[in-house]
Amino acid sequence: MTLYVNLAELLGSRIENGFYRPGDRLPSVRALSVEHGVSLSTVQQAYRVLEDNGLAAPKPKSGYFVSVSRKAPALPAVGRPVQRPVDISQWDQVLDLIRVAPLEAVTQLGRGMPDVTSPTLKPLMRALSQLSRHQDMPGLYYDNIYGVRRLREQIARLMLDSGCNLTANDLIITNGCHEALSASVRAICSPGDIVAVDSPSFFGAMQTLKGVGMKAMEIPTDPLTGISLEALELALEQWPIKVIQLTPNCNNPLGYVMPEARKRALLTLAQRFDVAIIEDDVYGDLAYNYPRPRTIKSFDEDGRVLLCSSFSKTLAPGLRIGWVAPGRYLEQVLHMKYIGTGSTAPQPQLAIADFIEGGHYEPHVRRMRTQYQRSRDQMIDWVMRYFPEGTRASRPQGGFMLWVELSEGFDTLRLNRALLGKGVQIAVGSIFSASGKYRNCMRMNFATKSSREIESAVRIVGETIALLNAQTD
Amino acid sequence: MTLYVNLAELLGSRIENGFYRPGDRLPSVRALSVEHGVSLSTVQQAYRVLEDNGLAAPKPKSGYFVSVSRKAPALPAVGRPVQRPVDISQWDQVLDLIRVAPLEAVTQLGRGMPDVTSPTLKPLMRALSQLSRHQDMPGLYYDNIYGVRRLREQIARLMLDSGCNLTANDLIITNGCHEALSASVRAICSPGDIVAVDSPSFFGAMQTLKGVGMKAMEIPTDPLTGISLEALELALEQWPIKVIQLTPNCNNPLGYVMPEARKRALLTLAQRFDVAIIEDDVYGDLAYNYPRPRTIKSFDEDGRVLLCSSFSKTLAPGLRIGWVAPGRYLEQVLHMKYIGTGSTAPQPQLAIADFIEGGHYEPHVRRMRTQYQRSRDQMIDWVMRYFPEGTRASRPQGGFMLWVELSEGFDTLRLNRALLGKGVQIAVGSIFSASGKYRNCMRMNFATKSSREIESAVRIVGETIALLNAQTD
Ligand SMILES: Cc1ncc(COP(=O)(O)O)c(C=O)c1O
Ligand SMILES: Cc1ncc(COP(=O)(O)O)c(C=O)c1O
Repeated sequence: MTLYVNLAELLGSRIENGFYRPGDRLPSVRALSVEHGVSLSTVQQAYRVLEDNGLAAPKPKSGYFVSVSRKAPALPAVGRPVQRPVDISQWDQVLDLIRVAPLEAVTQLGRGMPDVTSPTLKPLMRALSQLSRHQDMPGLYYDNIYGVRRLREQIARLMLDSGCNLTANDLIITNGCHEALSASVRAICSPGDIVAVDSPSFFGAMQTLKGVGMKAMEIPTDPLTGISLEALELALEQWPIKVIQLTPNCNNPLGYVMPEARKRALLTLAQRFDVAIIEDDVYGDLAYNYPRPRTIKSFDEDGRVLLCSSFSKTLAPGLRIGWVAPGRYLEQVLHMKYIGTGSTAPQPQLAIADFIEGGHYEPHVRRMRTQYQRSRDQMIDWVMRYFPEGTRASRPQGGFMLWVELSEGFDTLRLNRALLGKGVQIAVGSIFSASGKYRNCMRMNFATKSSREIESAVRIVGETIALLNAQTD
Repeated sequence: MTLYVNLAELLGSRIENGFYRPGDRLPSVRALSVEHGVSLSTVQQAYRVLEDNGLAAPKPKSGYFVSVSRKAPALPAVGRPVQRPVDISQWDQVLDLIRVAPLEAVTQLGRGMPDVTSPTLKPLMRALSQLSRHQDMPGLYYDNIYGVRRLREQIARLMLDSGCNLTANDLIITNGCHEALSASVRAICSPGDIVAVDSPSFFGAMQTLKGVGMKAMEIPTDPLTGISLEALELALEQWPIKVIQLTPNCNNPLGYVMPEARKRALLTLAQRFDVAIIEDDVYGDLAYNYPRPRTIKSFDEDGRVLLCSSFSKTLAPGLRIGWVAPGRYLEQVLHMKYIGTGSTAPQPQLAIADFIEGGHYEPHVRRMRTQYQRSRDQMIDWVMRYFPEGTRASRPQGGFMLWVELSEGFDTLRLNRALLGKGVQIAVGSIFSASGKYRNCMRMNFATKSSREIESAVRIVGETIALLNAQTD
């Protein structure tokens, strides 16, 4: 592990164990540098990690202090997935999640839905509506295979914030991030190939690997700093891994933002072993801290990073508009996109282009970031109030998902079944592992503004957990 | 070859060679039955084929007469593709076709665009526009993975006309027919498998096979009656073919409707060799004769036919809404659809459901059928007027594509390059063959109402052909 991550974890655990208390002044950068024999900049990096994770905050001219933030539950343990490539299972459980229709009379804490009721989305609906009123409506035609140029230009501009220097010609529009990931994998891999993934990992991306007959090598992942570079290096030495697939920014499901130095280190590893990286940045613009975190792609020099994203989390998933910047794999990805779906629907692309050009994107995303950060705090409070003592939870730095770890041996599949009759649905932990690990974990969505309905759903989940615990005792 | 097809071809060639002239009374059913030693119903079937192909027409109580239709060019020869499974090439040439943006200042005779300017489409645009004006707009949400139920119910109802008894639960909504085909192929086949295809064949479906690493076994195909069952049977005996993929109704590019008895015979073959059938019916509702032709699927008893279609040709391709009725492969196709793109955009689905429920679909399709039949005749006239003598052309029974065969040795790739500077684009013949055959052929779109622009484009193509011919002489 790099020095500063080590140091950040040490300080973090001291804070969490109450060695330093909320409001306490933390040791000075200089003092820590001497104490641990590391450079000043290493200490500063460590403090930045603590800051990102809401554990410490700087005060001008007086150093770092332990955040007086509300008490938070302990972090989930680092997962211990199977230490060899495995075939991906869990399709049945994923299907249970995605076969539910939207707006059914169920509080769907399990889905990856953003809040689409914000008034800042109104100009988008106006654009959609207006586009349908032309007689020679461009939304009715086959689009060219790359996607609407005006939109690609806007995406290239937005991605500047992530450190990427892209042009419209580097981008292919896709049917959501899902197709971006799928076309990327199919462009690089053949059946039987091994893909290294963060663990827990987004189930949709894993099912995509499964569908192409790939094996997943799950890499232990820290809930604050992301995929373990040490474990990844070992895996790369041991197995003929073809691609590393991960979500470094506002990870789904863990919510961390991988520190910049670790992103660079990961890229160096990929170069050394000559593997490609599929980087899922679908939540990148929803990081609570501004400016938004950089992508691994922004450090890429030889085109080995395939950056995948969409407007599903920032605007609305029903539009099904995503994109991929496939680097040196552009031609192959284009072919795979074509053979999967042909071209992409032009109308939502044109509407989104109008929306961004009209200056509506940034204010909307700013508003959602603030809302999500607030409802994260609310959701954590509710978990602490309604869930059994000892429950652990992630500390998301962006997006709208909370990862919850219950006591060992608890089975969230049973929980979900018990919740069925109670009008609440969660995402069970096992679908986030290729081999069905994390059965005592679950993911909950906190996108909607806190409301009685959501609070009551969380309370019902908590009570049902207690009930099941009582039954097994 | 079955008896009636044999007979139909014999009579057809007599008409084409001037043995019977326009307006002539044709031999009676009884006389032909005696002359050829076949049953009355065989003769009747033969006459029905001639009728479908516009060569003969019945007069009540007085028998069949040679149509006084305009003179038509000779039919293209039956293709002679490579007689073994081949890897699919031609991606570069397909890319040349699909990278062109719509509405560019080029007359795109090459694309598969229907006419989307008909006033009968207005209610669809109204529906699209209205759906965007709700605050709690359902089009913004993730749809359930099968697609909008209301739309699936309407599709099941429409498909009754093709003889299919489907329910909403038998259908999966996809991103166009393209995704329906792609998910079907990926559900059944593994890399290296062999797929039998009609030849010439829709290039998109063939590129899909290529993308999954499949080999194509091209089967000679008659321009009036479709894929040769004799050649197909031979191929099935010789090679471990996994699937037969074809477009029996209003074939792209040849325009024929496969006679019903041949559809049944094909299904029997598939049963005997236990292979699946991927049936592309995307133009089925656009057959000029009413009622529309039956699908092979409508005869299917053991779920081996995967019926693929979309609203791209009947309504508008930019909506990207298609469907698949995968029979016994439903679960596998669902998984493949999910791993390709996740769910499908709900807004266009809801708009199409509104359109059909409102009773707007049937009148629209009726109008388009008539328009396309009329512009087919116009296009054939222009080809006869502006193209070199000896040019052959298909006689489409539905849809809006004409297949044109030029003299042997002519190269339509060269033609397309020469047309580049002249603002016209055609689809070169070689992309309709896995191995790049049909270089002396091309496909032209006649969807738009005949206009000076189209006529002038066809004239330019004709003149350029003459020019190139003069250069090589
Ligand atoms: C990490 C991640 N990647 C990709 C996706 C899929 O995004 P889209 O809806 O744009 O296909 C999701 C959605 O749940 C996600 O969480
Ligand atoms: C025979 C055939 N099948 C499928 C398609 C693709 O249809 P869609 O645009 O619905 O994906 C086409 C379009 O050109 C076609 O001609």
